[in-house]
Amino acid sequence: MFFVRGVAASFVLASAVVPLAIAQKHVDKVPSYYGAQPATEDIDLTMYSRIREEGLKHSHVMEFGGALSDGIGPRLTGSPNMAKANAWTRDTLTKIGLENAHLEDWGEFGMGWQQINTWARMVGPDPEPLWCQAAPWSPSTKGPVTGELVYIDPATADAAKLKGTMTGKIVLLGAMRPTPDITEPLFKRYTDAELKEMESYPTAGGRPGAPNIQQLMADRVRMQAQRAALLKVVLADNPAAIIQPSRDSGGGGGTGVIFDDNGANLSRNAQSREGAVNVPSAVMMIEHYNRLARLITNHVPVSVEINIETKFTGDHEHGFDTVAEIPGTDPKLKNEVVMVGGHLDSWISGTGATDNGAGSIVAMEAVRILKALNVPMRRTIRIALWSGEEEGLFGSGGYVKQHFGTFNDPPSDPNVPAFLRAHGPLTTTKEWETLDAYYNLDNGTGKVRGVYTQENWAIGPIFKQWIAPLADLGVSTISYRNTGGTDHLSYDAVGLPGFQFIQDPMDYETRTHHSDMDTYDRLHQADLEQAAVVEAIFLYNTSQREAMMPRKPFPHPETDKARSAAIEGIYPGAVK
Amino acid sequence: MFFVRGVAASFVLASAVVPLAIAQKHVDKVPSYYGAQPATEDIDLTMYSRIREEGLKHSHVMEFGGALSDGIGPRLTGSPNMAKANAWTRDTLTKIGLENAHLEDWGEFGMGWQQINTWARMVGPDPEPLWCQAAPWSPSTKGPVTGELVYIDPATADAAKLKGTMTGKIVLLGAMRPTPDITEPLFKRYTDAELKEMESYPTAGGRPGAPNIQQLMADRVRMQAQRAALLKVVLADNPAAIIQPSRDSGGGGGTGVIFDDNGANLSRNAQSREGAVNVPSAVMMIEHYNRLARLITNHVPVSVEINIETKFTGDHEHGFDTVAEIPGTDPKLKNEVVMVGGHLDSWISGTGATDNGAGSIVAMEAVRILKALNVPMRRTIRIALWSGEEEGLFGSGGYVKQHFGTFNDPPSDPNVPAFLRAHGPLTTTKEWETLDAYYNLDNGTGKVRGVYTQENWAIGPIFKQWIAPLADLGVSTISYRNTGGTDHLSYDAVGLPGFQFIQDPMDYETRTHHSDMDTYDRLHQADLEQAAVVEAIFLYNTSQREAMMPRKPFPHPETDKARSAAIEGIYPGAVK
Repeated sequence: MFFVRGVAASFVLASAVVPLAIAQKHVDKVPSYYGAQPATEDIDLTMYSRIREEGLKHSHVMEFGGALSDGIGPRLTGSPNMAKANAWTRDTLTKIGLENAHLEDWGEFGMGWQQINTWARMVGPDPEPLWCQAAPWSPSTKGPVTGELVYIDPATADAAKLKGTMTGKIVLLGAMRPTPDITEPLFKRYTDAELKEMESYPTAGGRPGAPNIQQLMADRVRMQAQRAALLKVVLADNPAAIIQPSRDSGGGGGTGVIFDDNGANLSRNAQSREGAVNVPSAVMMIEHYNRLARLITNHVPVSVEINIETKFTGDHEHGFDTVAEIPGTDPKLKNEVVMVGGHLDSWISGTGATDNGAGSIVAMEAVRILKALNVPMRRTIRIALWSGEEEGLFGSGGYVKQHFGTFNDPPSDPNVPAFLRAHGPLTTTKEWETLDAYYNLDNGTGKVRGVYTQENWAIGPIFKQWIAPLADLGVSTISYRNTGGTDHLSYDAVGLPGFQFIQDPMDYETRTHHSDMDTYDRLHQADLEQAAVVEAIFLYNTSQREAMMPRKPFPHPETDKARSAAIEGIYPGAVK
Repeated sequence: MFFVRGVAASFVLASAVVPLAIAQKHVDKVPSYYGAQPATEDIDLTMYSRIREEGLKHSHVMEFGGALSDGIGPRLTGSPNMAKANAWTRDTLTKIGLENAHLEDWGEFGMGWQQINTWARMVGPDPEPLWCQAAPWSPSTKGPVTGELVYIDPATADAAKLKGTMTGKIVLLGAMRPTPDITEPLFKRYTDAELKEMESYPTAGGRPGAPNIQQLMADRVRMQAQRAALLKVVLADNPAAIIQPSRDSGGGGGTGVIFDDNGANLSRNAQSREGAVNVPSAVMMIEHYNRLARLITNHVPVSVEINIETKFTGDHEHGFDTVAEIPGTDPKLKNEVVMVGGHLDSWISGTGATDNGAGSIVAMEAVRILKALNVPMRRTIRIALWSGEEEGLFGSGGYVKQHFGTFNDPPSDPNVPAFLRAHGPLTTTKEWETLDAYYNLDNGTGKVRGVYTQENWAIGPIFKQWIAPLADLGVSTISYRNTGGTDHLSYDAVGLPGFQFIQDPMDYETRTHHSDMDTYDRLHQADLEQAAVVEAIFLYNTSQREAMMPRKPFPHPETDKARSAAIEGIYPGAVK
């Protein structure tokens, strides 16, 4: 799941995709995804049983998880580990019997990079090892470097006074912050009441308490501009290194850990030559950062030795998705495709076990289960494991663009994130007509509790019937709401059915998401097995259904205009 | 608070001190501490008010806390930081107006040592920085050393097979372990029900569920012997370094942190030349340790680079306590002494803020309050800040031995911890007769909720009256039970009134106690201010009272024998 600094990605994207103006492509006759849908689903309970048996008693999900998170490690897009993960998933999918396993180039990403070694210690007044790690795409220091510290709280910094004081020094860039006590469990599952609440669709004024996205984004743009201006002053002095504090995650979950997601990068597009920052930078555990900052605030000179050793492994690196198939067997339907996926890439602090190793290995296990059962499936099942998700859904976005459709984007403010810009009409492909549905899982290691329909009203009653036999596994909830933050949005954006499962939250948001705590230890075997079973059943049902899955109505900007014109001047006595 | 590997220190010591046979010294007339005690306390509410005013509105406890934990850092006994802390407390106590501030040598400790820098990283298969730190008294590696890993789970290790496989390698010594989810808050305060429960004194068979200390200690001795035997095999191979996993602390508190207490040392008496281990050793965060161990278990060769840089700063170092006084003013009583303290020393993982910076700064603040009020106090107030507590109450034990009394210990099994050995009669000093009471605070940063009387029945009703005006501050509970694990035991052991306050648990046991999370961030200002006020009031009340505080009856081994003899053969028909 990706994260926009200062704004929870799930809110931003959920709301942002709604107003997209999508022009419907001309089609000769009404396709089944826009046609009438039966009220009753013809599900096969024997297949439910066989999928459960295979998935709950002969699972390989933990072996996949160990090989990916322990065996390969963190998978920053463009890094050697990402290439390893692409190759390993391709080969493993082939090994478990899928066909046409291959890598697909989704476009240019930026620099290849990996962390080799990072350490720091206070030299004085007290020798203390300090936990930190390189910010992604940071250059190396010239071996271990020692420097006096300068502490900058951006809220109170006086750029004019700072100028000229930082050359050769080590800059603590960011405010120290309080570390809340852990007075609530960091790990939790959804209660029945919480799930029940998610089933309701608020019709009056949206979800209560939902943030004002426009305002948040404006704040963000302003904050980034201030940050950039301050950074410019810092960089002009050419300090030896910059250290940032690890961000908070609420409720004490951000204590004792290192988050290294977008917040840890000094610039947007840190992966590009243009966005690169030439001063080595690291992100530090808040307890160590606070101690250094407090010493300085108390007028104690502090010196730190830091060694950041990183390696640039290429430039203009392309990103790749791993794609493989179980071909359909029904001559009439096998050209139609049901997709499942997760993203392989991660940040570097942990080993990306829950974000999104979990979604990747669950998808692998789901297709393994279906392949192992060796039963004919009418439509083709395709697994896609994305990269570039963390930097902005690049892998799935590129895939969707190449296969399904492209927006004609008008020129727009580059400071506004792509997903908030106005869009021109959508041009779709032939494949767009045959993509049935895409299922995604990217909220950590928790078991599936239901599905978000992304405001696809027709699909709710279908899913409801599908999950009824899974009540004992804890799958209960169909929410008509939007959820965001991950790759199903790339499908949803072009009018294709893309869904994200509802998962038990566990300690994903509080602690593991983008932190050094995101390791194999956090993978919950029983949950992942359940999720793979549910996903396999969804794939199977989609594949076997007579009709394709219903799609949301395709909005025409012209229709919207006509809709407005029709009610113009209806107020008696209205003056135009 | 100190910690005995495998046995919660509070249980061990609480029970262990009870059966001590203490021979009462001959005294000419009944001293007030053994005489009749009035049922009503003559407390001075004006002084309560003035102490509160000074302590809650003009506190310096956080400045003390910052200077000690941030400014000096961890304070391992015998280390340069410990010497700094001794000097800083002596000078600060002088500065706030105490008299006769000085350091007292409590005896020989062992080697002086400090950590300079420790870091490790996986070299292959995946370059990853690993969080670890030197085990106390570990020697240095010869600069950064790289070696293949050997993983040893002591439960299944085959020493014969291991022999000869470890030379030049890096040994992971210790089982990997699961990392529990944080499903309960790590931070909590006592509920009213919990405090109520502590007020009851169980008379039938001791506390329910209390462990069998003899059995636990026997298990511990056996475990240590197995551990020592295995270690011998490992050391004989001369590996490049040994890495141990950080221990658990229950409920997920042991995840993502590094505990470096006794469990991190490879030998008992690691601080001594005889106990020293000549192979460099470190303790590692469990998530990183587990990953390394799992890779090996999955047949992936792993190599690690580790740099342990430490410094031995002396041998046969002596330990010192910081002692200072506010002299009494009543000619009749000023030779009597009321003591307060905490221990200054810590382990090295954090900065010893809560263990036991908190107790030290609260005691300093308590005497500062009394001094600032500038009112005459009848008896002399003496603050003592101990060292060597973590290794076995050495500082307070040595002080008590030098000032108050010595046991004539019979020769005993050196494998049995000193506090479990049989004791001969106690020889007391003149000062023993004039030590009124000792108050200790060493359970972290939580506010005072009451006092343990250590089975001193007469003192309960006295304390109850003292705390009645403090109900609004949350002080409510007199528990007649024993509590252990810290320096009041040194007084209790020789028949002197030594007390430990009941404090809100916060996240002390779960997370901060002996870990890298024990930093200034964990200090709770309002709690520490409250604790200092309560402690100052206890000191003041003790100082002003007409009689000295009641002592527990002084058991005579001879009386115990006579007691048994008196009932011999009382069963009708009993055959001797």
